[in-house]
Order: sequence, then C-alpha cells, then structure tokens
Amino acid sequence: MIATRTRCLELDAADPLAGLRRQFDLARADAEGLIYLDGNSLGALPSAAAARVRQVVEDEWGGGLVRSWNTAGWIAASERIGDKIAPLIGAAPGEVVVADSTSANLYKVLHAAMAIVRHGLTATTGSAGTRRCIVSERTNFPTDLYIADTVARDHGLELVLVDADDVPSVLDERLAVLMLTHVNYRTGRMFRMAEVTRAARAAGVLMIWDLAHSAGAVPVDVHGGGIERDAADFAVGCGYKYLNGGPGAPAFVWAHPRHLAWMDAREWRQPLSGWLGHAAPFAFTTDYRPAAGIARFICGTPPVISLAGLECGIDTVHAAEPYGGLTALRHKSLALTDLFIELVESRCAGHGLALVTPRDPADRGSQVSFSHATDGYPMMQALIARGVVGDFRAPDILRFGFTPLYTRFVDVWDAVERFREVLERGEWRDPRFAVRAAVT
Amino acid sequence: MIATRTRCLELDAADPLAGLRRQFDLARADAEGLIYLDGNSLGALPSAAAARVRQVVEDEWGGGLVRSWNTAGWIAASERIGDKIAPLIGAAPGEVVVADSTSANLYKVLHAAMAIVRHGLTATTGSAGTRRCIVSERTNFPTDLYIADTVARDHGLELVLVDADDVPSVLDERLAVLMLTHVNYRTGRMFRMAEVTRAARAAGVLMIWDLAHSAGAVPVDVHGGGIERDAADFAVGCGYKYLNGGPGAPAFVWAHPRHLAWMDAREWRQPLSGWLGHAAPFAFTTDYRPAAGIARFICGTPPVISLAGLECGIDTVHAAEPYGGLTALRHKSLALTDLFIELVESRCAGHGLALVTPRDPADRGSQVSFSHATDGYPMMQALIARGVVGDFRAPDILRFGFTPLYTRFVDVWDAVERFREVLERGEWRDPRFAVRAAVT
Repeated sequence: MIATRTRCLELDAADPLAGLRRQFDLARADAEGLIYLDGNSLGALPSAAAARVRQVVEDEWGGGLVRSWNTAGWIAASERIGDKIAPLIGAAPGEVVVADSTSANLYKVLHAAMAIVRHGLTATTGSAGTRRCIVSERTNFPTDLYIADTVARDHGLELVLVDADDVPSVLDERLAVLMLTHVNYRTGRMFRMAEVTRAARAAGVLMIWDLAHSAGAVPVDVHGGGIERDAADFAVGCGYKYLNGGPGAPAFVWAHPRHLAWMDAREWRQPLSGWLGHAAPFAFTTDYRPAAGIARFICGTPPVISLAGLECGIDTVHAAEPYGGLTALRHKSLALTDLFIELVESRCAGHGLALVTPRDPADRGSQVSFSHATDGYPMMQALIARGVVGDFRAPDILRFGFTPLYTRFVDVWDAVERFREVLERGEWRDPRFAVRAAVT
Repeated sequence: MIATRTRCLELDAADPLAGLRRQFDLARADAEGLIYLDGNSLGALPSAAAARVRQVVEDEWGGGLVRSWNTAGWIAASERIGDKIAPLIGAAPGEVVVADSTSANLYKVLHAAMAIVRHGLTATTGSAGTRRCIVSERTNFPTDLYIADTVARDHGLELVLVDADDVPSVLDERLAVLMLTHVNYRTGRMFRMAEVTRAARAAGVLMIWDLAHSAGAVPVDVHGGGIERDAADFAVGCGYKYLNGGPGAPAFVWAHPRHLAWMDAREWRQPLSGWLGHAAPFAFTTDYRPAAGIARFICGTPPVISLAGLECGIDTVHAAEPYGGLTALRHKSLALTDLFIELVESRCAGHGLALVTPRDPADRGSQVSFSHATDGYPMMQALIARGVVGDFRAPDILRFGFTPLYTRFVDVWDAVERFREVLERGEWRDPRFAVRAAVT
C-alpha cells in the first residue's frame, strides 16, 4: 500500500485509540501547528493533571495545609501510584513504589544486588567470590552507567560494558549483575526482555531492567509470564516519558517478591535509609527499621505536587484498557514507527540519513532514530523551527518518539513532509541552527 | 506588661512585617477561623506559588513541552534556586544547590566527609585512623540518624549519640564528624551555631548542619562571619518548612568552598552520581565526570513542578528584606514565641503542661513545645478540631511553629484561649481524639 496523507487520515479515522488523544492538553500545540514527537523525553500534559495539580496546590496545600498528609492521602501516594504502575510492567500490587529519581533508584537496587551477591542470598547467584562484574550495554543511558560505576567501585567490582549484540552471549559465572535499559534512548533498539532475563537467570546473574523508555509504551512483563525462573530481579523506570507524569516526575522501583522476602527476614536496609522508608516513620525512633516489602525503597518526603502530575499521567495509559491496553497501544506504536521509517526512507532519501532503529518490530521500542554523519544537530533544530519537535542526541542521532496515546498517523505524514522540505530547501544550513542550546 | 487581646491587636497594627502576610493564600484559613501554627512542618501556600505552578504546568509543560528545558529555564532551576537560598544561610552564590530530599543530601555530604577523613584532605582532620565516630544528638530528627548510621556502618565508623548538653564538650580526636540539626524538631532547642562550629573546627572535627528548622526562620551563617576557621563544612536543609516551598519540596545542600576546591581538583564524585550532576550531561559520555563546584551534588532530573513552588516560597522570605530581613523576622519570631510561652503558662496552668523549649532566646528556634506526660496526643487533636493547627510528636510533645511571615500576635492570643478552653472543658477527653491518624 502506498502511503498518502489521505490514507493517513483514514487510518486515524479508523483508529479505536484515536479518542485517547483528547485526554491531553494539545490545543496550543495544534493551534501552533506543532507535531510533538518527543514524548519519549517529556510526555505531553494530560488535561486532568492541570486540574489536579491546581487542586493539590490551591485546595490541599493552600486550604488543607499540613492536614492534607492525612485528609488528602499524600502519605499513601508513593505506594498508591506505585500500584498504578505495577500492571503496566507486569508487576503485582504492592511490588512497586514511586520515589526519587531513576538514578537514585538504580543506586538502591544495585546495592540490593550487591547484598545478594555478597551474602549468597539466592540459590542462583553462585559463590560471591567469583562474580566480580556488573555488565551493561555500552550505549546505555549515561546515568545508568555512572551509577553502576560508582556502586561497582564502592564494592570492589568492575563495570564491564559490552555491545548490545553480545547480550546475552556474554553471560557467565564471572557476572554478578546484568543491568540493561529495555529500550535504548539513542537507538530505540529494544532488548527481548523475556529471552535476556531467562538467560541471565539461567546463568545465575541478577537481572536489573531500566524501563525508562518502555513503561507506558510497550508491554513489559517483569514476572516473565509467572515462571519464577524467568522473572527479573529488579526494575526501575521514569515517570515523565511515556507515563506523561510531567517534567522531572518521580521515578519508580520494583523488586521481585523473592528478594523482598529476604529483605524482610533480615531487615535489610537500602543505603538511602530515610525516614519515610522506616517501618513506623511517625514513631520517631532512633533506630532505623526498614518498612516491609517494597516500601523500604522510599527515602525522604516525596514531592507531592509533582506526584500529582505523575498520577494523572499514568491514568492516561490506563484509559487505554477498554481498547486493548498496552497491547493495542503497542500495535499502534509499531504502525506509527513503521510508517515513519517508510516515509523518511522514501521521501527524505538522498540526504545522508541512515536508519539506526531496528526494522524488526520485536527489536524496536516506540521511537525511531536516524543518524546523520555531520549535520544532525542543525537538521533537528531546523525541523523544530518548522514545528516538528524531536530531539538530537550527541554525536549524530535525530530522535523521534511516538506516543500512541496522542500521536496520529497524519502527524507522521506531516512531520515527514516538513522534514523533506527542511532537507530539500537546505533550511538547516541557516547559521542560527548551529547554535547549541543548554538542553539538546 | 500584661498581655491582652487588645494589646496583641496593637502589636499587629504596629508590626512593620504585618504586610508580608498578604503574600500567602490564607483566605480559607481565615474564613475557617483557622490559626496555623504548623509552618515548621509545612509552610503555608504563597499566592504566587499557585499562579506560578499553574504557569509551569499549563504554559511551560502543556504549551512549551520539552522545549521548556531551555526556554523556561528548567535546566538551570536547581542552581538558580540554590542561589536564592544561599543568602538566607550566610552562603555565597554558587555554593548552594537544590536537589532531592534532605535525607539524600545528608547521605551525599556524609560521604564527602568520609572521603575527607579517609584521605586526610584537610589540615584540621588529623590522621584518618584515629577518627572513628560520627557524633550526633540523641533526639535529632530520625532521618539524620538513620542516614548517618548507614553511612557509618558502610565506612566502618560508629555513630555515637550524645545529649545536647554534651555538645560541644564531647569533641575530641576520636570524632570524625559532628552532625547536628540547628533547631531540634521536637524541642525547638537551637544550638549556638557559631560556638559549636568553632569548637568542632578547633577539634579537627567536620561540622555538618541540618538547617531544616532554621532556614527562613532564624539567621544562619554557615561561613562563621567570614573567619575561615569558624566556618562549617557542610549543610543541608528542607524546602517545605519555613521556606514555604510546598509539600515535599526539594531540599538543598551547601559545601564550604574549601571542600569544593579539593573535590574539583580530584574530580571527587558523590555516591549518587546521576547524569545531571555530570560536568556535561548533554554530551552523553560513558564516563562520569562530576560538575565543578556544588553542582556535583545534583543527581537526577529534578521535579520541576515542585521546584516552582519552592522558588515562590523562598521569595516570600526575601520579601522581608526591605523590613530588615531575617534579623527582623527573628525579632518578631522571638516576640511571638515569648508571648506564647507567657500566655500558655499563665492561662493554661494546672493541666500538666511543661515547657520543653528553652526560655533563653539564644537557645530557641521559631517553635514552642510543651510536653504532657499522658495526653498530649488527644489534647492536640482536640485543639486542631478547634481550629488551632499544631502537631504532636511522639511520645509526649505538643509542638507549635511560628512563622513570622504570616503569624500574628492576635493569632497567638486566640490560639492560647482556645487551648485554655479545650483544657478547661476537657474537650480532649472525647474518645474520637484518641484515634491515631497516619501522620501525627
């Protein structure tokens, strides 16, 4: 089938998920003629979040004041919102909690992994002495590598970076932890979670997944279909990408119940042993006693206003449930990214763009990246100036995110047409597009 | 002079700071007849925050989308807001950054202190081998003790808790770190920062201050009047108490430039080495290289919406500058707490209340606490039901905070009158006041 703008409009008209777009406050973007393909960096504003944040600030903070910790349920928000994330990643209620940033949560679960390895707490990890490596993928998001490097140093382990193609073949008895981001932030390449997790577990390696670029966009099953030996060990993820939680929204953390069990039995504490992760924070006792279960991963007082935005963002994903939920969202996501790849390759050919994202849907997240050897940065700036917002990732990646909750097929068409014009007219050669912004 | 309600109204009429109250959205509290004496737990809502948060959510997130990291200055907010806190604690611009929670920031600076001790990085610390203790005060806020205990364990040190009266006499060459909260959350007792800091420094002990209950309420001078040997080493503090930043607003962290200098020279990394504390986060390099100066204490992406509330809260304190700033606020605070003590002791006598907060203004923060041996909890609940919001801190403390920006002398009078009635009528004996809320 040959794609045309008319055909794209027909696809939108037939899209059972099309109505979900109305959850978002995109009126100004639409009035501006903006096509937003950066929901993988910052999800769009859910209309409910504007109202809900106003309520939290003006009524709960302003009117309720400190009483709102009880009356407005602030104190339970970290766990309540965690329970809303749980089904989106295949976890059960009580297994996920919202807290801090993805970086901080990685720090916590890596420490948990170190404790497991050091004390031989699981049957599969083998002897502590031989497992000396944390392995990750060379192009993983930097914060994951920075945090893992720090934790590895502090525990006398080595952080080893490998190519994505070498996962899972690199797995052996020297590895303590395999820490991967499910969908790569630059390439959009997605690991086959079930296969990789199974291989890691079979090799006695602890499996930590960063779901920053998957939660809310692709189906995730941290429990491996309920087969205990295929279930991952820990996961963390981001609230402000496909979960639409707002800029810097708190992150989440999941631990498999088999780990929570030994943590409970030994009263294991994560390093950020702040008061709200205490078993009885309002007893104000001198000694730290971690809360049972996943709540032990809470540290200090959460940013309540930002939490309110996050909850509304997660609700936009749950709103897809009557239409098939994440399976349906994934189906649409792949249709959008397939179309984008097809159109860029056919209509923007001859300008030096090379597809970076895998063509195989099984290996692709909800984004498409092209590289350009020399001029990716000004090309993206020129495209943004033409109202198509993607982003650039150094050194050479033009990155486009597709949020099936609000991205339309006609958006894909129009975005590519503008891209074609930017390229054909050489608009990106304007010197102003070479000036680097603080955030690229 | 005998206090009367009329006299209190006269004091308010003559108060040059009285107009600052109009910065806050207290219309509903006033309509409800509410007297809010819990700004030491959660500061009241600045009217500007309601408008500013709406702008951040609806215009910057909703309209600007990801572009707002640059166009709305989100990326610089942690440092910009840190610079606004700096003068409130006697620090210079570039020395304070806003990030994470107080607990997480304590974790970072305690690790910095451990590095200093381990490597003998300052002339005053003596040999690493002999300094084996982190000392804090027995009734310090639990999170400080929990975090210090974890850090001490991880570094093979011991956390030693002493009575407030034993500070600073306990200082000797066995101590590595003295970590104190300037104003105690339960008692309202304030350490004499200059004296204690000087003694710690003279003993070669690193001085860490938690300013949670002082920033924005009492003058603080972390630099010790500019005399290098009297300056503290590190400080952290809370955004949502007297800084009025909103529930769970991010916290702040300060380090003396002498430490930032060696951190820069050695590229020292704090343990939460997240990507936004990198020297060049958008270079997306594999290796962690900490940002120069205090920015290295940033970890992950900050909760931007909550940051907006915090900035407005801090601005309410700066608004006192034309009227004498923190010196004037402190003067009013002491007048309010003096009056409250006088009135409770005279008008609520005979009910078993005992003043816990020091009478000497030099030893008192901006709160007043009374203990009651058996019935503090229901007494506070009954008082809250009568529209006077203080709080209870286990096991026996009734706690009242006085924020001079918005608390009036007549509020003190009226609060004590209602307290008197609650006590005289035995209202607190109603069984419903015995039921513990999640947050006390």
